[in-house]
Amino acid sequence: MTAAVDSARNFARVHADRFQQELFDMLRIPSVSADKAHAGDIDKMARWLADHLRGLGLENARVMPTAGNPVVYAEWLGAGHDRPTVLVYGHYDVVPAAVEDGWSTPPFEPLVRDGLIYARGVTDDKGQLFIHVKALESYLNTGGAPVNLKFLFEGEEEISSPNLAPFIKDNLEMVTADVVVISDSSMASIDEPAVTHSLRGLTYIEVEVQGPKDDLHSGFFGGAAHNPALALVEILSQLYHPDHTIAVPGFYDDVIDLTTDERLMIARAEFTEEQFKAAAGVPAVWGDERYTIRERVSARPTLDINGIWGGYTGPGPKTVIPAKAAAKISSRLVANQDPVKIFELIKKYVEALAPPTVTVKVSLVTHGNAALIPFDLPEMQAAAAAYEKGWGASPIFIRSGGSIPIAADMYRMMKAPVVMMGYGLDTDGFHSPNEHYSLEMFRRGIETAIVYLDELARLSP
Amino acid sequence: MTAAVDSARNFARVHADRFQQELFDMLRIPSVSADKAHAGDIDKMARWLADHLRGLGLENARVMPTAGNPVVYAEWLGAGHDRPTVLVYGHYDVVPAAVEDGWSTPPFEPLVRDGLIYARGVTDDKGQLFIHVKALESYLNTGGAPVNLKFLFEGEEEISSPNLAPFIKDNLEMVTADVVVISDSSMASIDEPAVTHSLRGLTYIEVEVQGPKDDLHSGFFGGAAHNPALALVEILSQLYHPDHTIAVPGFYDDVIDLTTDERLMIARAEFTEEQFKAAAGVPAVWGDERYTIRERVSARPTLDINGIWGGYTGPGPKTVIPAKAAAKISSRLVANQDPVKIFELIKKYVEALAPPTVTVKVSLVTHGNAALIPFDLPEMQAAAAAYEKGWGASPIFIRSGGSIPIAADMYRMMKAPVVMMGYGLDTDGFHSPNEHYSLEMFRRGIETAIVYLDELARLSP
Repeated sequence: MTAAVDSARNFARVHADRFQQELFDMLRIPSVSADKAHAGDIDKMARWLADHLRGLGLENARVMPTAGNPVVYAEWLGAGHDRPTVLVYGHYDVVPAAVEDGWSTPPFEPLVRDGLIYARGVTDDKGQLFIHVKALESYLNTGGAPVNLKFLFEGEEEISSPNLAPFIKDNLEMVTADVVVISDSSMASIDEPAVTHSLRGLTYIEVEVQGPKDDLHSGFFGGAAHNPALALVEILSQLYHPDHTIAVPGFYDDVIDLTTDERLMIARAEFTEEQFKAAAGVPAVWGDERYTIRERVSARPTLDINGIWGGYTGPGPKTVIPAKAAAKISSRLVANQDPVKIFELIKKYVEALAPPTVTVKVSLVTHGNAALIPFDLPEMQAAAAAYEKGWGASPIFIRSGGSIPIAADMYRMMKAPVVMMGYGLDTDGFHSPNEHYSLEMFRRGIETAIVYLDELARLSP
Repeated sequence: MTAAVDSARNFARVHADRFQQELFDMLRIPSVSADKAHAGDIDKMARWLADHLRGLGLENARVMPTAGNPVVYAEWLGAGHDRPTVLVYGHYDVVPAAVEDGWSTPPFEPLVRDGLIYARGVTDDKGQLFIHVKALESYLNTGGAPVNLKFLFEGEEEISSPNLAPFIKDNLEMVTADVVVISDSSMASIDEPAVTHSLRGLTYIEVEVQGPKDDLHSGFFGGAAHNPALALVEILSQLYHPDHTIAVPGFYDDVIDLTTDERLMIARAEFTEEQFKAAAGVPAVWGDERYTIRERVSARPTLDINGIWGGYTGPGPKTVIPAKAAAKISSRLVANQDPVKIFELIKKYVEALAPPTVTVKVSLVTHGNAALIPFDLPEMQAAAAAYEKGWGASPIFIRSGGSIPIAADMYRMMKAPVVMMGYGLDTDGFHSPNEHYSLEMFRRGIETAIVYLDELARLSP
């Protein structure tokens, strides 16, 4: 390890408390992208980040508009033209959170309990993106970094990044880099770091069933008006076959089945049934029994009901036939499945199931592509070396079940390897109540990020 | 017609505007019984009614506590022991209403448009109960009524009157009467008045499906955790057979099938398919094709989903596997079906359908009995005469699809005929947005109620 690495790591250790307080400042801003009511918080968060990066000495630090939420960009090119350039991608937006969802503490008032920071977005992705910011700061305060760095932080990842691909296309020269690093994923335990080389895509759909024009009294119309909530459940109950495979015709047509080697790699991270039940908090494991649990949650496509609503949901009884019932459903897709084609297949199937007694509308909410990056690339192997030296353990290469739609787009548009070094834990509660992140993971993440920049600097150009 | 009737009718005509303003005062109080947040409004409404009745000269006018919402009682026994005593039952509570449900105007700010009063509860049941109050007031201001009257107004009809049967049992002597009159039902058009002689019972149930302990990220757990919203739709989709008969084993066991005479009586009020589609605002008629539309909505039992909810229902996407999903379901029952037995049958069926991958809880929210009263009783035939003279049209005797659970209980406990003279229209929007009531129906109702008291006075004791 070079002296520069040691100095930077030392700086990070000395300033750990301040780094944590700065992270808390970010976490206090409820930058929820799914809800327009938080547009002001999105802007506040973007300005905070740009100001912070400028304050650290980065150049061209600014909030850049898109057709949706702004992008925050900044760069440090002080290593010179002969050194590699690294683009770090992250997202400053978060999914919704409210105390009534089951949070023990207010989700936007971060606090530390037993070495864990509790707050919405702390692991997904504010804590993880901040690791890279603090790694660069540590170098800049101890003589400079061994590579050039660019930061690209977006505010729409949780709504599937509708405006980032156009932004990158329009600013391709600005963002060009030799390698893209993303930290927005997780490992099974602190001693089992992982580099993600596969992400699932996503198709997110809303199904709305309209029955009567207005809500009706069930006593006067019940028995001769088709209840739209009943029609909806009758339709949605046909999404799956009894063996838990998806019943939408053509759904699996483009899935390339796993090779034996891939299944062996996935098996290195296998869940036991007991482990999965404990992690998910479910009474029993479910799914397509031809695949292992880890394969089901990472290498196979899914179809979930994310939300369902209709009629009276308040306290006590109300004898209404609702005018409408609706559901949000989404499919996690694997490489080679086209999200728009999958939407069309589901739409066609649902419309075919719709009886003439109701009106059914199927609409596409958002979508994103899957990504599969080879893990024998030198930039990937450099990541393995960085974990060994910085984290203290050798990583495995894994497939994540989650979606970072932009990863596939960047890989395609920027023609640079996308290296996903997830500094979260599987149990951090991504998208769940009581999301948390350990101070120890945050510290080790910064040290590993520092080492990784050094490893990249030493790759032959 | 007697001179007393003419004088009372004349008083009602002269004071029509004031009657309307007083009704508006009632409508402005959001006395919603299904929501504890309105407990203060319930009390306010009860006090308003007791004060109003006392002001008209009734005796023993008071708000009487129950284990739930209070009962308002008042009496006028000035006709003397040799005259019949009539008990008028009504309810001052209403079902929930909010502008976002589709109201064109705020539901608790009554207004008149094109001869119709718009407000929650105006037809169900504040307007209809007030008809009887104003009929008695008209007599009392013109020499006294020909019969004794007792008013019993409750505040829990919309939550199935859990405390009224015990109240009547405890106060049987106070409420004893020769005939019970209820106005809480409706007719097909203003020229087709109807006396209801049958009401459906009700069993109201909540089904809750718990999957994971907390909401999960669909990317990390989707594919191996059974989505509870999916499990719920899989269960609820099995409530009906494909021919639209209810699939719960034993559900129809106690139903006594309709006789040819009963079917002929029901056919007098038959809906055409076009009429039903227009009234319900649905694209097509649905249901058990062995029965006519009117039979399905009044003389056959039903099973409806009144509400369904689970997961993320806000704007935009959120890729969550919800921890829970739930539904409110209710069954309208016909005479001889036991509501508690039906609950047990549904519970057993739903629990048998529940897979081991989730936990299912089935609970009884409320229930009430069906009622069937012979229509050849003299008090029923007196009602027919009152419509002819007061309303200007001869009524038909109908079965209502709605439920007034207390009607069955009063018939059984008080051993007096229960005469249901509905002064509403089928299209008034009972329990729906933009509930309304015509000023003309209100006026004719008061005149018919005045005549009915006179008809009852002339029955031989």
